Amino acid sequence: MIDVSQSPHVKLHSVPIRAVRLDEGFWSARMRINVERSIPTMLEELEQHGIVDNFRRLSGGKQAPRRGPLYSDSDIYKWMEAVAYVLESEDRPDLRATFDRLTDEILAAQEPSGYLNTYYVDERTDKRFAEMYRSHELYCLGHLLQAAIAYYRSTGNRKLLDGGIRFVNYMVENFGPSKRPALTGHPEFEMALVELYRTTGDRKYLDFAGYLLSGLERERLHLTDGQVQYMFSGIPFTLRRHFEGHAVRAMYASSGATDYYAETGDAAYWSTLERLWSDLSNHKMYITGGVGSREAGESIGEAYELPNAQAYGESCAAIGNMIWNWRMLAVTGEARFADVIERALYNGINSGMSLSGTLYCYRNPLESAGEKIRNEWYDTTCCPPNLERTLAALPGYFYSTNAAGVYVNLYDNSHLDWHLENGAGLKIEQKTKYPWSDTVELTLTPAASSEFSVFLRTPGWSRSTEFTVNGKPASGVAKAGHPGGGSANAGRYFEIRRQWRAGDRVVVKFDMAAQLVRANPLVREDAGRVAVQRGPVVYCIESPDQPALSSLFDIELVSPAEAFREEFRRDLLGGVTVLRHRGVVAEKPLADEPLYQAVAKAARSPVKPVELTLIPYYAWANRGLTSMEVWIPLYQDGR
Amino acid sequence: MIDVSQSPHVKLHSVPIRAVRLDEGFWSARMRINVERSIPTMLEELEQHGIVDNFRRLSGGKQAPRRGPLYSDSDIYKWMEAVAYVLESEDRPDLRATFDRLTDEILAAQEPSGYLNTYYVDERTDKRFAEMYRSHELYCLGHLLQAAIAYYRSTGNRKLLDGGIRFVNYMVENFGPSKRPALTGHPEFEMALVELYRTTGDRKYLDFAGYLLSGLERERLHLTDGQVQYMFSGIPFTLRRHFEGHAVRAMYASSGATDYYAETGDAAYWSTLERLWSDLSNHKMYITGGVGSREAGESIGEAYELPNAQAYGESCAAIGNMIWNWRMLAVTGEARFADVIERALYNGINSGMSLSGTLYCYRNPLESAGEKIRNEWYDTTCCPPNLERTLAALPGYFYSTNAAGVYVNLYDNSHLDWHLENGAGLKIEQKTKYPWSDTVELTLTPAASSEFSVFLRTPGWSRSTEFTVNGKPASGVAKAGHPGGGSANAGRYFEIRRQWRAGDRVVVKFDMAAQLVRANPLVREDAGRVAVQRGPVVYCIESPDQPALSSLFDIELVSPAEAFREEFRRDLLGGVTVLRHRGVVAEKPLADEPLYQAVAKAARSPVKPVELTLIPYYAWANRGLTSMEVWIPLYQDGR
Repeated sequence: MIDVSQSPHVKLHSVPIRAVRLDEGFWSARMRINVERSIPTMLEELEQHGIVDNFRRLSGGKQAPRRGPLYSDSDIYKWMEAVAYVLESEDRPDLRATFDRLTDEILAAQEPSGYLNTYYVDERTDKRFAEMYRSHELYCLGHLLQAAIAYYRSTGNRKLLDGGIRFVNYMVENFGPSKRPALTGHPEFEMALVELYRTTGDRKYLDFAGYLLSGLERERLHLTDGQVQYMFSGIPFTLRRHFEGHAVRAMYASSGATDYYAETGDAAYWSTLERLWSDLSNHKMYITGGVGSREAGESIGEAYELPNAQAYGESCAAIGNMIWNWRMLAVTGEARFADVIERALYNGINSGMSLSGTLYCYRNPLESAGEKIRNEWYDTTCCPPNLERTLAALPGYFYSTNAAGVYVNLYDNSHLDWHLENGAGLKIEQKTKYPWSDTVELTLTPAASSEFSVFLRTPGWSRSTEFTVNGKPASGVAKAGHPGGGSANAGRYFEIRRQWRAGDRVVVKFDMAAQLVRANPLVREDAGRVAVQRGPVVYCIESPDQPALSSLFDIELVSPAEAFREEFRRDLLGGVTVLRHRGVVAEKPLADEPLYQAVAKAARSPVKPVELTLIPYYAWANRGLTSMEVWIPLYQDGR
Repeated sequence: MIDVSQSPHVKLHSVPIRAVRLDEGFWSARMRINVERSIPTMLEELEQHGIVDNFRRLSGGKQAPRRGPLYSDSDIYKWMEAVAYVLESEDRPDLRATFDRLTDEILAAQEPSGYLNTYYVDERTDKRFAEMYRSHELYCLGHLLQAAIAYYRSTGNRKLLDGGIRFVNYMVENFGPSKRPALTGHPEFEMALVELYRTTGDRKYLDFAGYLLSGLERERLHLTDGQVQYMFSGIPFTLRRHFEGHAVRAMYASSGATDYYAETGDAAYWSTLERLWSDLSNHKMYITGGVGSREAGESIGEAYELPNAQAYGESCAAIGNMIWNWRMLAVTGEARFADVIERALYNGINSGMSLSGTLYCYRNPLESAGEKIRNEWYDTTCCPPNLERTLAALPGYFYSTNAAGVYVNLYDNSHLDWHLENGAGLKIEQKTKYPWSDTVELTLTPAASSEFSVFLRTPGWSRSTEFTVNGKPASGVAKAGHPGGGSANAGRYFEIRRQWRAGDRVVVKFDMAAQLVRANPLVREDAGRVAVQRGPVVYCIESPDQPALSSLFDIELVSPAEAFREEFRRDLLGGVTVLRHRGVVAEKPLADEPLYQAVAKAARSPVKPVELTLIPYYAWANRGLTSMEVWIPLYQDGR
């Protein structure tokens, strides 16, 4: 997704998608659905809703009014980026032909100047670049470039890339401090510009990203306080002290700023990024990795403002969190960023697509009384193709390299076929049923025996982790990283440095027992409640599994004296491990009690025991309209 | 405020403002500030911001552009209504002259047709009644009528009233089922129409209110689902099943519907009103009597969605809650409605005006990290004059009558000089320091000795209440009402029926000990927390009273083995009873703890004892920018 092989200020380098094959396992099932169902049906939706016709009408290929919101061009670009990633994993001439056809149809709408946008045409032509706080012109261009670069990397075909460059060159020539003022009203273009610099080596693209991040044009563009808060642009990025405003904009802006830092090493950027990351992970991130508390403005709330039923948690924002942390991981090599990637991926992103692959969440609340949360289409359909490109790119997140060796970031049944940075070939096979099983077997096949390090991510949630090499305990060197867990290695990479030979076998065994998680008491909505997490998977209770109960919200989880009982249910929700535990339920429905009552009178209502079944959060809302809760009240006798 | 003396479907009748004098006490201090500071400075603000000039420019009296939002005419009308109520209590020739001058300036802008609105003029003339979902034309007319009727009642002068009637007649003649379609995009006009019917006896005004409440015009006006939810109008009122949408609109619509029921006795209205009242008081009302959880759309949230820091709780919505319950009380004679009036009045309304009388809250959150909540002016300045008219009308809420006798709804140092419904004169003197003291002495002076009932409201919060007549325990007859408290009479009117003689002395003694209140566990934000209430007054902790603590939000209240210590502080915040109690504070700031951690690891952080001081919620934010909290975490050892 990003090529940081030449970036001077990164510690880890990416491994291309094509070097990793996900075998039968947790993610391969999702990826297969993505390719077989999601991607084809989404193109049908985009066609039906006129999003491709918006281009055809400009080249005379179709007589039709323009349809969709002003940013709809980006939806087809994101879809194309997904296809480009699929082509790294599979040879799909049909998808390649579709991409090429779409490229032709899109570029046929490009003007000689390079300008390309289906909204600012006809009677809106004179508004081009005149309302950049809302126009999404550069946002669409950014997505075009990302699709074009991905396709160029996977196929060598640079037709769309050349088209994108024509538009970018038009921008660079006409906009800047001594020219017309430019602004990313929805940040995203910054990432694409840095990637274009990485792809072409032409520094002017990096400089233009720096210009946009510098936020110099507030005055010339008459931006209000509310606008620069909402857009997360328009003032110098390095003046940001906390997250606010539109969640997706904030994540994308931070991703672009990290890309910019990776190339420039500007210390002001790094201190800002560290501060923002701390603000997000300490104050504003859902346990699912979701971001964005408020529906109003699709925005990030105040510190600790993390409502559950009202959570917005847009799928795109969780994806933004993941792609930002991917860049932070590259820059630092610290496992805390990979922990966030895993958290977002398995939960707040994974919830965004139905098990069928054809329904999508825009919002991802952590509690629901039965609203319709999955739809096949949204007028603002940013999330569906964003989920598709994320799943298609997934193999690219599994490994990284540096001069010392290879980093294992994620675990799943898979094969790596790549090389060390000295060029020596290296294959790694992972055999595991992760995240359902706690054990991963890695078999290494270096092309020739040599000394290097294998860095195994030890997730922050694993309270104790055992590493063996060829059956003997491995002594590791704990790497920098925050001490997120109870064991010395949790939240770090465990380094095993040795002379590796073909067939060497590493076994990692995590502590995957389901655990209760509590939130900081300053999170008002989670007080007295716990979440249940098993490995990377956050669980929830959902009404279909509690058929005897009239209201899911009368349930409390009995404070555990005993462990959760685990059962893998192949038949359920695509195959999940369910958790069972003792609970209680109020004998009189809570809804029948008054809103307020004096404590003296409020003797605890009688409860009766109940057997609770928990399912993975990501799998909720696949059985009709249901009620669901992640943060469950904790029942303690004598409370 | 409302004259229900001829209304066939009420159980209680109002006592005019002029019949009640509030002597030195809790409310007289607020009312004096209102007359001496709030009302004069608000007129200055209205003048400075061009709200009166908007009328003058139409009659050629002033060359100026129109200023303010499209509903700003209503702000001056509400101010005038406040003045009209003041004139019931005091002879103020200056205010009367100002009212008359404003009347002339307003009516000079009225068109021959009767149309009167300063926004839909000039280039917007053709939009009259063409965008009623937002236009506020009828909202402004409603407020004009309420001011005009109040002034007519207090002075006999009907000049403004006649002007208002001209506009209403224009509406009635031109709008209706077989004429042009009408809609109250912001309900309020319905109340005014019923009051105009009560004032003139002309049934066409009542019928027009019924037409508006019938919501017949959804189709002709092409109203969307979102619009009819938000406006709380546009569909038949009797189809409403729960509260939603804009909080003030919902309260005003319900008030108008209750007025309509009081005249018609339409059973469908009553069952709707009962259902809505239950929805509000069981699911959607703050402990302060505030209404409206969400800033987005200034709206009522889902059931149990009652956030504290993010609470909207617009002052106007709490006032709407009070005036609606005043009508419900008249219709039923049931004390549960008076309980809500008292709750809103002492807390969520009273917080809306600063102790200085010149700063106003628009939002009334129940928790704050130090935002600026009080301002002298808002572009949408609905709340300030609304607070002023409410305080000026306050004496009118103290008593009601029916054929059996007299109802005492509220308690404060005061004199009533009125008569029973048989015409026999009756004076009642209340001597009390309520709400700081628990005792009220009432001395009755009937013009001639006779048998009748005195109904004394026993608030729902009083766990035990003693009544004596001339020093001897009074035997009462409990009246209908919900059993809100622990004593048999709490939440009811206590009836004392006897032969009353001049000088008879009733003493009521409430249980006013501070008590802890908990919210239904379904209110996510209040879980594990308690509010402290003493009598009708809801308390809070505010940072100036806890000077040694770095964060107010690290405090917990120790579960009370001992009572709160009370101290009346004459010097503090205009004179308040403060409460003191043991608390604890985390030794390590909660903000330094992680956002999420495994419960096993989250052994309770060490705490140290701290002495907590609580002040009345209404008095917060009068000492600069402070942090504040109503719902305080409850500390229980061993938790």
